[in-house]
Amino acid sequence: MTKKLKIGLFGFGCVGQGLYYVLNNSTGFTADIVKIAVKNKNKERSISQELFTYDKWEILNNPEIDVVVELIDDAEEARQIVCEALKRGKHVVTANKKMLALHLEELYELQLKNNVSLLYEGSVGGSIPIIRTLEEYFDNEELKKVSGILNGTTNYILTKTIREKLSYGQALQQAQEKGFAETDPTSDVEAFDPKYKAVIIALHAFGLIIKPEEILNLGITTLNEHDIRYAGEKGFKIKLTPVIERLENDQISIVVAPVFINESNQLFNVNDEFNGVIVEGKFSGEQFLQGRGAGSYPTGSAVLSDISALSYGYRYAFKKHVQEHASGFTNDVVIEIYLRYNSPLDLEKIRFQEIKETYTGNDYNYITGKINLQSLIDQKGYILQNNLFVSLLNDKISLNKTNSGEVLYEKELVTSI
Amino acid sequence: MTKKLKIGLFGFGCVGQGLYYVLNNSTGFTADIVKIAVKNKNKERSISQELFTYDKWEILNNPEIDVVVELIDDAEEARQIVCEALKRGKHVVTANKKMLALHLEELYELQLKNNVSLLYEGSVGGSIPIIRTLEEYFDNEELKKVSGILNGTTNYILTKTIREKLSYGQALQQAQEKGFAETDPTSDVEAFDPKYKAVIIALHAFGLIIKPEEILNLGITTLNEHDIRYAGEKGFKIKLTPVIERLENDQISIVVAPVFINESNQLFNVNDEFNGVIVEGKFSGEQFLQGRGAGSYPTGSAVLSDISALSYGYRYAFKKHVQEHASGFTNDVVIEIYLRYNSPLDLEKIRFQEIKETYTGNDYNYITGKINLQSLIDQKGYILQNNLFVSLLNDKISLNKTNSGEVLYEKELVTSI
Repeated sequence: MTKKLKIGLFGFGCVGQGLYYVLNNSTGFTADIVKIAVKNKNKERSISQELFTYDKWEILNNPEIDVVVELIDDAEEARQIVCEALKRGKHVVTANKKMLALHLEELYELQLKNNVSLLYEGSVGGSIPIIRTLEEYFDNEELKKVSGILNGTTNYILTKTIREKLSYGQALQQAQEKGFAETDPTSDVEAFDPKYKAVIIALHAFGLIIKPEEILNLGITTLNEHDIRYAGEKGFKIKLTPVIERLENDQISIVVAPVFINESNQLFNVNDEFNGVIVEGKFSGEQFLQGRGAGSYPTGSAVLSDISALSYGYRYAFKKHVQEHASGFTNDVVIEIYLRYNSPLDLEKIRFQEIKETYTGNDYNYITGKINLQSLIDQKGYILQNNLFVSLLNDKISLNKTNSGEVLYEKELVTSI
Repeated sequence: MTKKLKIGLFGFGCVGQGLYYVLNNSTGFTADIVKIAVKNKNKERSISQELFTYDKWEILNNPEIDVVVELIDDAEEARQIVCEALKRGKHVVTANKKMLALHLEELYELQLKNNVSLLYEGSVGGSIPIIRTLEEYFDNEELKKVSGILNGTTNYILTKTIREKLSYGQALQQAQEKGFAETDPTSDVEAFDPKYKAVIIALHAFGLIIKPEEILNLGITTLNEHDIRYAGEKGFKIKLTPVIERLENDQISIVVAPVFINESNQLFNVNDEFNGVIVEGKFSGEQFLQGRGAGSYPTGSAVLSDISALSYGYRYAFKKHVQEHASGFTNDVVIEIYLRYNSPLDLEKIRFQEIKETYTGNDYNYITGKINLQSLIDQKGYILQNNLFVSLLNDKISLNKTNSGEVLYEKELVTSI
């Protein structure tokens, strides 16, 4: 019924080694890793050197190999490998979210054109089977929203800031020492990584291929003790939570930013390096999935699950993309945010539609209220340059019901309270 | 790519109507409900009478119908319908857990023999895609444990006893008024329903076909305010939580009973009519899935998901059953329990291996400690007759390391404290 697959593996880092271990310790499943392509000739390897090659073509041009598993870091090199493999009629399993998000359309077309399968469960949510669940379980149901904690590194850091009252810097350092954060943590802490994952989810949940650069990502690098205290006092935890929402007019909008999460939200209890995803269906209601968001074995296990699916000829059907009626992507929406700012000048840049609260004090100032997402995107550079901190007050994105782009509020808002 | 299915539906109650609505409001999926077989000729129907028949053979013998969806209550009648359909080469979707659990082996053989597909996602966990996740995502990974809240009715009742301090009787009445509990709630409150679900999960998670009568089910009918207070004081919630555990020796053991759940357990926050399942894999760690456990649309949505899967020829592979190395089922294990009892005589019947705590007071007595599961099963009748209440202290099942069956403790344990 199932055939024994011959695998060419690219990369033998954390996930590659995890896969190798999981594959060799799984019950009843047989697939051979025929060759492993790596870069560094001088690195000591834990397994026989004979398995390794330093020439990618040795895998790509080997007709015996029917599956390429791509687990390297470099997104551009990964893209080349994956494209070459697909063009040669090889199935591909990858966990490279950046590569996928940046080239989703090209990769979608390539796997169709070459009649091969491209699977990537390991790219989103670690061991949580979110792509498969969207593909196969919610394939016929209109989804209203997907939100979640999709980055283990920042969730670990944020958990530390709450639970152990560490500063952002201290928590980051601990995360790096524990191996949960890279030496260069930019992609995680500036929320690029969860944005890539949101792009992938948007395809399978809503059928849209959206370019990452169209989506706002705001990270946690400027988070300070005032923000944490403010949230805590109101019973919230700050969680980096991408929100993908279907609006009333069936357009899709996405924000990738910190969000104030309250206790009634499932994500409130997703702590440490865990990931969690909430899928809200028209009929099924809210589904919540949680699991380990990162790590050698959990991700290796997700990759193995894809390899196993290949053994019975599985391919994503992309039903939402083929049939879905979501009518495009928009940033012309309204969100409610908390903004910690430095001076009134900041508020001439970042202009609210409606103000809920303002606070000015000796130590810090904040303002909360409704803002047009596009106007916030326009000021992203300003926000980063001036170390302002922005968090959504809740996980809701609403249709902009004012005239498009019009900013209702006009100046003089900063009242001391 | 996918073919348009012709469906014969049995039953037009809560789930049947939910399916009808969900099917007719799903995006992009087309399947025709050709006929609906119901019992009651005189009932008013919300849709055209022409669709209905009162003769099951009109569906079973109709060669045009390729899928039978069975959504009736009566387990024996359901079995006949499902068996006849499978024998006639029709695929079957059902949500009838009792029927499935009681006849799992026969149904497994029949779908193999007739080369048709039998799917039943709607039978367990409402809208949570647990069967599919076990079948396809954890198909190659050795699982260590599956535990969960699988019965919405009792979870609703238990939530009320904690949140609103209602008595069991008051909470049951509210559940009945709200439509969460049947007029005869026996199957739910005496934990037969979650036991059937545990049987189904055991097949897909561990490859074992276990007869329901081999598994202990203890319900919540004798729960009283002392038990709730005792649990609450220690920071626990009492949740009806089937536990399916792989022991050190690779045998599987199952207990379906109330369990003291603490805050660090994901199930602590699964409240009201929601269901939640924790799947613990050797490599992937703990996965948690939560969703609506019951209701017309959520279950209808699960059934639709199965119908959709049939449109691309999906069948369960039962890989764990075919390949798995779990070496059978056992009740010769040790669990830790809380027992509220009436008189010292009770403790001559229900004998502990090891005592942790004892309490005797004017109003009630309890004892906690380790007990052999089989010895508890032997006294189930006694427990029910005498209105004793039993809850597991935790969700762990351990190998019995004493000589099989030997009871270590001997008498005189009841010390006043």
